[in-house]
Amino acid sequence: MFEARLTQGKVFKQLIEALKDLVQEANIDCSDDEMSIQAMDNSHVALVAVSLRSGGFDHFRCDRPISLGFNATNMGKILKCAGNDDIITLKAEDDGDSLALVFESPGQDRIADFELKLMDIDSEQLGIPDTEYKCTIQMPSGEFQRIIRDMQVLGDTLTISCTKEGVKFHVAGDLGAGNVLIRQNNTAEKDEDKVMIDMQEPVELTFALRYLNFFTKATSLGPTVILSMSPEVPVVVEYPIGETGYIKYYLAPKIDEDED
Amino acid sequence: MFEARLTQGKVFKQLIEALKDLVQEANIDCSDDEMSIQAMDNSHVALVAVSLRSGGFDHFRCDRPISLGFNATNMGKILKCAGNDDIITLKAEDDGDSLALVFESPGQDRIADFELKLMDIDSEQLGIPDTEYKCTIQMPSGEFQRIIRDMQVLGDTLTISCTKEGVKFHVAGDLGAGNVLIRQNNTAEKDEDKVMIDMQEPVELTFALRYLNFFTKATSLGPTVILSMSPEVPVVVEYPIGETGYIKYYLAPKIDEDED
Amino acid sequence: MFEARLTQGKVFKQLIEALKDLVQEANIDCSDDEMSIQAMDNSHVALVAVSLRSGGFDHFRCDRPISLGFNATNMGKILKCAGNDDIITLKAEDDGDSLALVFESPGQDRIADFELKLMDIDSEQLGIPDTEYKCTIQMPSGEFQRIIRDMQVLGDTLTISCTKEGVKFHVAGDLGAGNVLIRQNNTAEKDEDKVMIDMQEPVELTFALRYLNFFTKATSLGPTVILSMSPEVPVVVEYPIGETGYIKYYLAPKIDEDED
Repeated sequence: MFEARLTQGKVFKQLIEALKDLVQEANIDCSDDEMSIQAMDNSHVALVAVSLRSGGFDHFRCDRPISLGFNATNMGKILKCAGNDDIITLKAEDDGDSLALVFESPGQDRIADFELKLMDIDSEQLGIPDTEYKCTIQMPSGEFQRIIRDMQVLGDTLTISCTKEGVKFHVAGDLGAGNVLIRQNNTAEKDEDKVMIDMQEPVELTFALRYLNFFTKATSLGPTVILSMSPEVPVVVEYPIGETGYIKYYLAPKIDEDED
Repeated sequence: MFEARLTQGKVFKQLIEALKDLVQEANIDCSDDEMSIQAMDNSHVALVAVSLRSGGFDHFRCDRPISLGFNATNMGKILKCAGNDDIITLKAEDDGDSLALVFESPGQDRIADFELKLMDIDSEQLGIPDTEYKCTIQMPSGEFQRIIRDMQVLGDTLTISCTKEGVKFHVAGDLGAGNVLIRQNNTAEKDEDKVMIDMQEPVELTFALRYLNFFTKATSLGPTVILSMSPEVPVVVEYPIGETGYIKYYLAPKIDEDED
Repeated sequence: MFEARLTQGKVFKQLIEALKDLVQEANIDCSDDEMSIQAMDNSHVALVAVSLRSGGFDHFRCDRPISLGFNATNMGKILKCAGNDDIITLKAEDDGDSLALVFESPGQDRIADFELKLMDIDSEQLGIPDTEYKCTIQMPSGEFQRIIRDMQVLGDTLTISCTKEGVKFHVAGDLGAGNVLIRQNNTAEKDEDKVMIDMQEPVELTFALRYLNFFTKATSLGPTVILSMSPEVPVVVEYPIGETGYIKYYLAPKIDEDED
């Protein structure tokens, strides 16, 4: 028996929103200390990893580890029926073939329950090595979203360069070129407005904008995004979810063929 | 000569909005005590009936009964030109072939007048028998709209079951099943938030969601909807319009072929 | 070297918005006292003329007259990347083949710079004669936009008649006819709500609504529009831009073939 109750139900709603365009099918893996999702995108270029610690739920019970295979589009359709203030409870029997989703309105005068058919999904959990990154950039998630959206106007490929002074985003295409420079800013009043750069050595990497754009669907999950970069390894784009967990996206950089 | 002036012109605007997707052509029937519309939907499955009492108008004059046949799409196009605060006046000559619509802005510095060409429409008025219903449910119209919208995600057919405890809406489809339970609630502070169930015996009926969805276009006309149900007869979905009148939709239930 | 810095950068953004659906390619002509654009629409029916005086910029330097040929769609794409509060600076070398656009956020923690490729565009500047008009109508730009939008529902052609009492807009089509009357109103509290008619003799002209609709894309540039009309000459639809300049559209009236 698995049962997890989330007063702030919209977090789960937003999580599924944040991966449904990238991932078609995935497993929710439940253990007694967390609920997690790990999946490659449909073209096996990007990886998404979600973790919600059991302590972040109002009620969490998982008798034995269970994998719940779901279709993300269908899950998203059902979650559209949950109000933003609803309490969401997930329930599954150990040998069941469906996931129950219960949405309670705050005043409890409206209770909706849905059954989503589950499916068997083959997926090996990738062990993601704990890496030390050369650059870690924390910045407002809305700002990052805007840059990605703006840059797509000009081209398909984004170069991110991190130096002590700031982070430079560069794109070039047929109609011209564009650069956005975000400066280190430790003094903003609110933590979430800060731009904090932790750099051991400068890093410059190039990515497909199309994937970065998918990642920014997670913007609603929190005010902050953290980019971790080292030469020749995948960038990690992490959106912390309050004290509860995170959604992380991994994307390999493009190999510069004949750039300097 | 027919002339009717409505200070709250947006009521007429919303009424036409509420039927134009369901009904292609209809007559406005005017007598000295009311302005009414009755029409079947294009596929002759649902019936819509509108009544605005003459007392609800600021000025109402109807020398002799008159039927004004109109195309609902065209009427809707012209009404898009009326502001939400405009005063709307309808005028027709006894033997004219057009309806004049005059829209006055509240400050009267803007006066727009439109002529809509009328058409001859054959339609017999159906006598709708005054029925005693086994269940009458009054609930917030916005809540009803949301349930209908949500349920469409999962299937085409909605089962409404009314018991003393509340009203259950049920849908089932390929990706799973869903239920929403609305509980009786007489104690809400505002009348319009109340859910009031008047039940002589439990009733369960099944309907095509597609039509219920058309009906919810009337949601903007008022905060409340009233569902009246008896076994094997059409449901009435009524939106009262202040003290002025109502729009009622009638829809026959689906015959359960091999359900229990 | 040309360099122009506009604290209220959104003016330039809105200007390009206001012409990009009408004009595919145009020159920005810079001299030491103004930045101007003049272009025919793609089908050579309407003319648009923009002028921003050098005094309206925070910084303006133009060493020698220069013409910067641009594609309006591409320029529009780049300007979508500018925030509404951004400071916009335009820069071009005398012999360069690109225009640099720099967008600074108000707090200067975000600097974006773009390069737009320039093109050679043949265009003769039309000398527009200074005409005395028989009627000049100043009215709220939002009101004018709404009339044009509403009238398009009914037909393709708009007749504007100006008399002392007010301005009448008339349209007729298959589904009926419509008129909007705007009355002279000198007494509105705010200048921008005033309707002021300066008339030497009544004028009635007929125009293609399609073009008038293009012109109303300039509505966001200011609260006021000024229509100048004389018989048988193009109407001027002018949107003043604060103290800085204007955008003017010229459109020839339709010849009435057999109207009275």
